[in-house]
Amino acid sequence: MKLSGRNSIMERLRSNPRSIRKIYVEHGFKGTLSVHAKARQHGISVFSISSSQMMKIGRDKNTQGILADVDEVEYLPYEDVLEAALKKKRSLIFLDGLNDPQNLGAIIRSLACLGKFSVVLPTHDSVSVTESVLRVASGGENYVPFAKVPNLANAIQKAKESGFHIAGAVVKGGQCLTEIALPHPLGLVIGSEQKGIRDIIKKHLDLELSIPMACDTLSFNVAQATTILCYEITKQKRNYRKENPHEPSECH
Amino acid sequence: MKLSGRNSIMERLRSNPRSIRKIYVEHGFKGTLSVHAKARQHGISVFSISSSQMMKIGRDKNTQGILADVDEVEYLPYEDVLEAALKKKRSLIFLDGLNDPQNLGAIIRSLACLGKFSVVLPTHDSVSVTESVLRVASGGENYVPFAKVPNLANAIQKAKESGFHIAGAVVKGGQCLTEIALPHPLGLVIGSEQKGIRDIIKKHLDLELSIPMACDTLSFNVAQATTILCYEITKQKRNYRKENPHEPSECH
Repeated sequence: MKLSGRNSIMERLRSNPRSIRKIYVEHGFKGTLSVHAKARQHGISVFSISSSQMMKIGRDKNTQGILADVDEVEYLPYEDVLEAALKKKRSLIFLDGLNDPQNLGAIIRSLACLGKFSVVLPTHDSVSVTESVLRVASGGENYVPFAKVPNLANAIQKAKESGFHIAGAVVKGGQCLTEIALPHPLGLVIGSEQKGIRDIIKKHLDLELSIPMACDTLSFNVAQATTILCYEITKQKRNYRKENPHEPSECH
Repeated sequence: MKLSGRNSIMERLRSNPRSIRKIYVEHGFKGTLSVHAKARQHGISVFSISSSQMMKIGRDKNTQGILADVDEVEYLPYEDVLEAALKKKRSLIFLDGLNDPQNLGAIIRSLACLGKFSVVLPTHDSVSVTESVLRVASGGENYVPFAKVPNLANAIQKAKESGFHIAGAVVKGGQCLTEIALPHPLGLVIGSEQKGIRDIIKKHLDLELSIPMACDTLSFNVAQATTILCYEITKQKRNYRKENPHEPSECH
């Protein structure tokens, strides 16, 4: 698949160079030297091409002058994601049928910045980690483990059996996010843009969370809501660690 | 200007119907009846049109089957925004040269959901509240007062003279957002997507704030960062009110 944009490719060169097959830079691209230097270290070929060739290879999308052929995104087995999440104190984010690549990309970017999150997507009726998603994720995809599961309800059930508490984000009627002490380890379910969390998933929730709203008729964009919820999770985990310094430290 | 999308127009009908000149709905649009009912209350004409007419009037953008002609966005005089912010305990968000309408729209939507924020934009080298911004703001524009100022540094200086503390969001090196007790009343400066806060503005800051990052080489999208910062501001204001119930209550 194609990866484009300066930040995405520089981040990929740093964190996962083996997934890059080749790189194209447009004549006049600023930063050509540092791309060449990094690529040479890892034996990756860099092709210098014209603007019109870039348009053709980049299928008329805005590549910011740099494009790479990369391996398909790697989804990990759910059991591995679950085990690593427990061990490394990651929180699990279950995305129940997101449709918009822009939203998934924005969520991945935020989760990578906050750190210690893994994402679980259903195989059906959900956006996958496509080229459009990577463009928005801006390199965040290198820091967020993904799993794809055929049955999200079963995956949530397994997480519960492993000790995870499962919270669901709801627009109204949940416990107020600014007032609750969140349980850990935590799995958070985020519903789709139009329909929220499906009933078949809702019955597995241990608690429902709502961000307090100033205006009842509005709603957050799903990526913004997820970012807020995950910021709060991160903040509470950090404060817990500070108050319990004897707990073993964690690596990202 | 044109306003499109079901949520944007329903919200405008609720909160600011006088700014709507007429409404177009595409044949087969779901919700035609409720639009007609609301519009009739306010004497707004509704035209039922074909899909091809909608494409033409909507300039090939995705209107979701509903479009309105509305008045230009109203910017308030800065002095009025400042005075109202003090009185109603709103926080001021100074956007120092944002470029992307998508980001401004997302910020407005989040601020409206959180409540009690006003936005100050510079006249030059900044995106304005355009049709593209409104499309993303999804009705949030009705709940966020805007001002446009020729000189952002002067505006910040005036806010300081009125008693506002001025914080700036920086990617690295600021005080940690998860650990600081924020001062109030607060003005928050957000820098542009590429360059951050200009030096000419930075020298007016009372403090710098950073969201703790799991990974040094990544950065938040500016709308996501603003959403997190404003969530934290809102949370601290709510907790302060709870701990000081004798303070007069506030209306949005």
